[in-house]
Amino acid sequence: MPYKDEKLHEEKVFKDPVHRYVHVNDRVIWDLIATPEFQRLRRIKQLGTTYLTFHGAEHSRFHHSLGVYEIIRRILENFADSPRWDPGERLVSLCAALLHDLGHGPFSHSFEKVFKLDHEQFTQAIILGDTDVHHILEQVEPGFSQKVADVIDKTYEDKLVVSLISSQIDADRMDYLQRDAYFTGVSYGHFDMERILRLMRPLEDQVVIKSTGMHAVEDYIMSRYQMYWQVYFHPVTRSAEVILSKILHRAKYLYENDYTFKLKPIHFVSFFNESVGLRDYLKLDETVVMYYFQLWQEEDDPILSDLCERFVNRHLFKYIEFNPNEQMNEWNELTQLFREAGMDPDYYLEVDSSSDLPYDFYRPGEEEERLPIHLLMPDASLVELSRHSDIVEAISGKKRTDHKLYYPADLVKKLSDDHPAKRRIAELLHLKQPYKGANNHAD
Amino acid sequence: MPYKDEKLHEEKVFKDPVHRYVHVNDRVIWDLIATPEFQRLRRIKQLGTTYLTFHGAEHSRFHHSLGVYEIIRRILENFADSPRWDPGERLVSLCAALLHDLGHGPFSHSFEKVFKLDHEQFTQAIILGDTDVHHILEQVEPGFSQKVADVIDKTYEDKLVVSLISSQIDADRMDYLQRDAYFTGVSYGHFDMERILRLMRPLEDQVVIKSTGMHAVEDYIMSRYQMYWQVYFHPVTRSAEVILSKILHRAKYLYENDYTFKLKPIHFVSFFNESVGLRDYLKLDETVVMYYFQLWQEEDDPILSDLCERFVNRHLFKYIEFNPNEQMNEWNELTQLFREAGMDPDYYLEVDSSSDLPYDFYRPGEEEERLPIHLLMPDASLVELSRHSDIVEAISGKKRTDHKLYYPADLVKKLSDDHPAKRRIAELLHLKQPYKGANNHAD
Amino acid sequence: MPYKDEKLHEEKVFKDPVHRYVHVNDRVIWDLIATPEFQRLRRIKQLGTTYLTFHGAEHSRFHHSLGVYEIIRRILENFADSPRWDPGERLVSLCAALLHDLGHGPFSHSFEKVFKLDHEQFTQAIILGDTDVHHILEQVEPGFSQKVADVIDKTYEDKLVVSLISSQIDADRMDYLQRDAYFTGVSYGHFDMERILRLMRPLEDQVVIKSTGMHAVEDYIMSRYQMYWQVYFHPVTRSAEVILSKILHRAKYLYENDYTFKLKPIHFVSFFNESVGLRDYLKLDETVVMYYFQLWQEEDDPILSDLCERFVNRHLFKYIEFNPNEQMNEWNELTQLFREAGMDPDYYLEVDSSSDLPYDFYRPGEEEERLPIHLLMPDASLVELSRHSDIVEAISGKKRTDHKLYYPADLVKKLSDDHPAKRRIAELLHLKQPYKGANNHAD
Amino acid sequence: MPYKDEKLHEEKVFKDPVHRYVHVNDRVIWDLIATPEFQRLRRIKQLGTTYLTFHGAEHSRFHHSLGVYEIIRRILENFADSPRWDPGERLVSLCAALLHDLGHGPFSHSFEKVFKLDHEQFTQAIILGDTDVHHILEQVEPGFSQKVADVIDKTYEDKLVVSLISSQIDADRMDYLQRDAYFTGVSYGHFDMERILRLMRPLEDQVVIKSTGMHAVEDYIMSRYQMYWQVYFHPVTRSAEVILSKILHRAKYLYENDYTFKLKPIHFVSFFNESVGLRDYLKLDETVVMYYFQLWQEEDDPILSDLCERFVNRHLFKYIEFNPNEQMNEWNELTQLFREAGMDPDYYLEVDSSSDLPYDFYRPGEEEERLPIHLLMPDASLVELSRHSDIVEAISGKKRTDHKLYYPADLVKKLSDDHPAKRRIAELLHLKQPYKGANNHAD
Repeated sequence: MPYKDEKLHEEKVFKDPVHRYVHVNDRVIWDLIATPEFQRLRRIKQLGTTYLTFHGAEHSRFHHSLGVYEIIRRILENFADSPRWDPGERLVSLCAALLHDLGHGPFSHSFEKVFKLDHEQFTQAIILGDTDVHHILEQVEPGFSQKVADVIDKTYEDKLVVSLISSQIDADRMDYLQRDAYFTGVSYGHFDMERILRLMRPLEDQVVIKSTGMHAVEDYIMSRYQMYWQVYFHPVTRSAEVILSKILHRAKYLYENDYTFKLKPIHFVSFFNESVGLRDYLKLDETVVMYYFQLWQEEDDPILSDLCERFVNRHLFKYIEFNPNEQMNEWNELTQLFREAGMDPDYYLEVDSSSDLPYDFYRPGEEEERLPIHLLMPDASLVELSRHSDIVEAISGKKRTDHKLYYPADLVKKLSDDHPAKRRIAELLHLKQPYKGANNHAD
Repeated sequence: MPYKDEKLHEEKVFKDPVHRYVHVNDRVIWDLIATPEFQRLRRIKQLGTTYLTFHGAEHSRFHHSLGVYEIIRRILENFADSPRWDPGERLVSLCAALLHDLGHGPFSHSFEKVFKLDHEQFTQAIILGDTDVHHILEQVEPGFSQKVADVIDKTYEDKLVVSLISSQIDADRMDYLQRDAYFTGVSYGHFDMERILRLMRPLEDQVVIKSTGMHAVEDYIMSRYQMYWQVYFHPVTRSAEVILSKILHRAKYLYENDYTFKLKPIHFVSFFNESVGLRDYLKLDETVVMYYFQLWQEEDDPILSDLCERFVNRHLFKYIEFNPNEQMNEWNELTQLFREAGMDPDYYLEVDSSSDLPYDFYRPGEEEERLPIHLLMPDASLVELSRHSDIVEAISGKKRTDHKLYYPADLVKKLSDDHPAKRRIAELLHLKQPYKGANNHAD
Repeated sequence: MPYKDEKLHEEKVFKDPVHRYVHVNDRVIWDLIATPEFQRLRRIKQLGTTYLTFHGAEHSRFHHSLGVYEIIRRILENFADSPRWDPGERLVSLCAALLHDLGHGPFSHSFEKVFKLDHEQFTQAIILGDTDVHHILEQVEPGFSQKVADVIDKTYEDKLVVSLISSQIDADRMDYLQRDAYFTGVSYGHFDMERILRLMRPLEDQVVIKSTGMHAVEDYIMSRYQMYWQVYFHPVTRSAEVILSKILHRAKYLYENDYTFKLKPIHFVSFFNESVGLRDYLKLDETVVMYYFQLWQEEDDPILSDLCERFVNRHLFKYIEFNPNEQMNEWNELTQLFREAGMDPDYYLEVDSSSDLPYDFYRPGEEEERLPIHLLMPDASLVELSRHSDIVEAISGKKRTDHKLYYPADLVKKLSDDHPAKRRIAELLHLKQPYKGANNHAD
Repeated sequence: MPYKDEKLHEEKVFKDPVHRYVHVNDRVIWDLIATPEFQRLRRIKQLGTTYLTFHGAEHSRFHHSLGVYEIIRRILENFADSPRWDPGERLVSLCAALLHDLGHGPFSHSFEKVFKLDHEQFTQAIILGDTDVHHILEQVEPGFSQKVADVIDKTYEDKLVVSLISSQIDADRMDYLQRDAYFTGVSYGHFDMERILRLMRPLEDQVVIKSTGMHAVEDYIMSRYQMYWQVYFHPVTRSAEVILSKILHRAKYLYENDYTFKLKPIHFVSFFNESVGLRDYLKLDETVVMYYFQLWQEEDDPILSDLCERFVNRHLFKYIEFNPNEQMNEWNELTQLFREAGMDPDYYLEVDSSSDLPYDFYRPGEEEERLPIHLLMPDASLVELSRHSDIVEAISGKKRTDHKLYYPADLVKKLSDDHPAKRRIAELLHLKQPYKGANNHAD
């Protein structure tokens, strides 16, 4: 029997809190899971620094990837009888689902920004480079790894397959909304996935949902909205991200300025040089990063040491509402005052802005342009979701932005009371009135 | 207001998937949570290597500790009106609950065995030594840290307080059974804790449960039983533990024999020397251990390198049923054959035995002797649980043991077919018949 | 101890699937629950005919009433420390919560419409009339029953108490959304009530919610929206309501036209005469109604008998989309054709329109005018919900209406193919194309 | 296409809180559900009088029947690939699952005892008699109704099919344990059914479970045990059953003694005469029974009227522990005293005994003899459950019995204090000490 058709002697199952069981029958899938590249995802947290806000969010990308695979597996089980579905696309779909996040690194958000990396490029590189994953895929058939890479890259010719993995209601989103809700413990993030899966129908170039499932889709859209603002953009998490970025910036700065680290940061060198190869990238998981951060607490550079201590021991920055577009003067004054007070504003003052567009039917030119969701009507016509749903119509295209200014309240408090800058800093940061601080966990 | 009575300006909450919310009002508790020693628990997994079997089990001791605190907080809320409860014991109880696991290190089970450590001694050391935790406790009142340490050590004079924290139905067990069930996703581990808490009553020297709650207690005992055999003693998890122990043994052996590591394992030196001080201990969390294991994959010593590769990439040993008491001959023959085949039996062959006693009313002389559970009858008399419950009576005192032999199936398979030892090894390990292998996740 | 302060010897609990436990400590509450008037609510389904669509919806108003009581009990526990809350209002609030639905009759919706009844008037009548409930309330203090009645009637002077029981986010709604979701099994209807309760704050004349709870409130609003369209207005349920109304109309018509029933419908006489007294009203619960409907299946009148058979055995009408405002001609033609075909359009053709307004901040003159929801900001100001929430702002004031035409598809099908009306009826009712029929349970 | 192979145009689903969805594809199943005989099950509560203890238990046998069908449907889906499973048995299995409880009447337990009925005989009668159900089954093929009846009667030749529907771990039990737990809201009754279904394997004459599923089966056995003692045998429910039996006895007695009822109890006559035909039986559902009980509250016979008032308004009897085998003297004395006090002991004093055998591997001669549960070992041998499971071994064959004496505490209390019998009655019933009364809901 050719490798691609090989089944396991007996079905294997993974106990999964979200989908109850993840089922594996294909030898290819089983072998991919066993690769070092895939096992490495156990050492990358799904939600980066969110565990500092929601302590349950310690879950890794390993099971999110299994979860996306499992959802696709179930969808394709439902599609099996449809004349519209080409069974020849099954394995490439399952592999793409399983591997779609393979290139994620530690705390992706900050690392990518600071070191100008792109996890999607690394996903491509791992699938196409000299890796165990690549060799297994090529064993399926020569060129198969390129197919899988294309699906993930959205350039695959069968657009139906692409839409299963990346769209406004794809397996990726359906898994992470539920999984992140489960592990954080929030009551948002629930929707009737079983119903959505049952009502999905394959068309030529996209997957659509029978119109009787509209309310389940509305519920999904609302879950997504709530998860973004309640969990993903939680201001305390963003505080941790700010500190993380500052650490990376500082370490890079020190490296570039020939600072002598007590232990040479060999794992970081190619990152600092912005010339990260595949081998280096795969070695830098979150346990390695945390190892360095702990070491760096004892570095001589006071900024690096302080920031690492903050991150490791969760001494985060506090925050206030702050609109950088309207408060330029305050910003300039604050940076000046911070400098006077001996707190380098490049590391101790930051505005972070988050914005989200919960649903849109048309986003030409947007970086992450995604297909609208189409409902399949009883008369077989397609209707774009927001034209049928009052709720979705109401929020469609509504972009929301939130700005926060982060700063170390403890350092400000420690300034001598007769320091000339202290009173004004306190005024600008509203330190008199009780403020919502970074120590509010998930509140 | 004295520090010990200080309340937070506003109640703080932690979103918790198991208890929904953990509530903190006391300044002391809030300050303890913020210490580096307590935050360190985020980097120690609650279930050690279990995540290699149940992928969801990536949760840390940090939230288990919060959970135990929260359960005690709720119990004491219920006790508030009882004349039998001394409100003066509230804070020491809450602190002991929060801090009871403070001395746990990375993968405690294997580390303690190999390096002859005891996490309970480190808990005492952290509470009584020169740490942030200690200073906060002493700020409550001089000698308060000793009180907290005594409760955890079960030597505290108020035995009622001790029984809340350590007994056969204490807050510790109630939290971990539910938490571990939640994160692994198994359907065991559920019982009606709310009912048990409502029916707990404080007596002079122990906490008892109103007899109307007997069935909830039975359910708890059964949950405990199922969790032990389904999760805690899962043979795949034990396979990972075996490998972990072997790594530690090998590294220690190499160190003692003046092997030159590529990077000096400074974090491990005092462990190898069996002279671990508090500072060293606190620095060695699981991220550090994983950092070394990744490095050691590239060491020249083939055994260390192979074992680390197995642990990091989850290439575990397989296992068969094997009773060392009855199969001495096979054991001797196998070790001999392994040696002939070039696989050092000290590192590639191991018998692991697990045993559990689900409930007992009388365990004199046992290492972890715990009080029996008493039911409070309508006539105010106390009846030991197993005298009232048929189910518990049936299993009371029944010890169950399970023995497994672990070995590297892949290496055996790789032996040349004409190697003289191969056939006989395969025979002894039943390799002909399909065996239940380490790759069955949670099955 | 005065009756109003009397506590039970020991707290009583009701096991409740939604709130886990309902707790009763007050003698007054315990006694009210034991009255025949309250026990009667066990024989009135919470959701009327919905069980014919969602089979789990067989739950009675009895536990909804307990649930509303329990929510208020928890809210007042939280309010206990607030200087804004007058503990003297506790008992009247609990009684009003428990008794607010006391006047509901069988299948209220249809009965009230056909017989021109108002369950709110009967709630008042039971509380103020010569009933066990009334006597218990008066035992609290003379005039207490009037106070309870006033709270339910929203005329009570303490508007804070009124807003707990009736507002856009009151205990009534919070209970029924969750309870109806639980028993139907739909995945909508969930929101974080515990969080909302924790963040409710009493003001002079209303209860408000701390702004940090905004997302939980949004989730509640969305749950409400989904439950209305997915459950409460489900077209199959409305089909059953149509038939129910037709039965009542027909029976009344027959009675008024001196038809001789096989068994005199003594329980219905005062309803037919539109002169229902309190005693008669209390006797007519759903078991009595179902008894008559079963008897009436064997009546000689073919319309009454057919309609009762339909209701009892769930042979419902089918439906199509139909806008009565725009399709007057079709309506006239259909009634004419039905008459020609021997199906009385007064009983076999009906347009049912449902409409809902998910949230509004200002509804002057509306029948069920309710207060807007106010958020309590950090600076102690109040902000109306839709001004702070994008989602709520988007749907605020958006009224949605749905029209359906109901008809007996089986009778149309049974018409002889050469009946002159058949082809045209089929055309108008789109019987050629597959239609969504009344037999789709919950789809 | 023959009727037996006909599929619905599109799959129909029922939303079910326990199994999420019940799926119907077969025309035969759809038609059976629509029959009056099956719809009648909506008017028979699954748990009889249990709703008077656990208010949520208002669910009907209608959805339990759908649930059993759904479980069998899923099992057979798993069996589809097995060479051991004969697909020709699929439809008869599904029909038997759906119809297995068809003959249940109102409050079966008491009705069967008092009127010497047997619901299993009525199930046979409905399936084989002149009913819609029968005609649909015969349309499948002549003699098919007899096959379905035989499966339910356990006389069907294919013992594998019989074991799916009736064994110690059949679809019937798996559904009701979970369903009853869901609707009562208790935390017992949960087990991992999905895992059990996945590990079921068809053999020649029985269904067995792979040994890796042993712990899930243990959990099921324990759930069953807890549900029996916590829910099914709850002493308050048994109090309601006692009253119900007494009502039926009294009404029969009055009828036999030519008492003139205000309204002739036509629905009951054939029951009183112990000559119930199929038509009469089908007409007497619980709404009819409740109708009569409400009428009878106003009968002149004081015993009938009092007992009906108790049942309708939940004024139950209280109870004490009482062993009839050891307390014969007290029993004789009590009946004598009751008679003296004017309370007829035939109606106001009753000993109720419940007993259960949670699991047994061998019960020859028992009325409801059921097959033991067999585990399928890796070597393909079968091992009886209790030989492999310590827990099950421990409880295997252990029969537990509980005796209670029921009496009207209110009437005793109302006796004049100088009535000569009062003091002694109170003594015998322990009325001095606080007793656990019938008003404890689910405590």
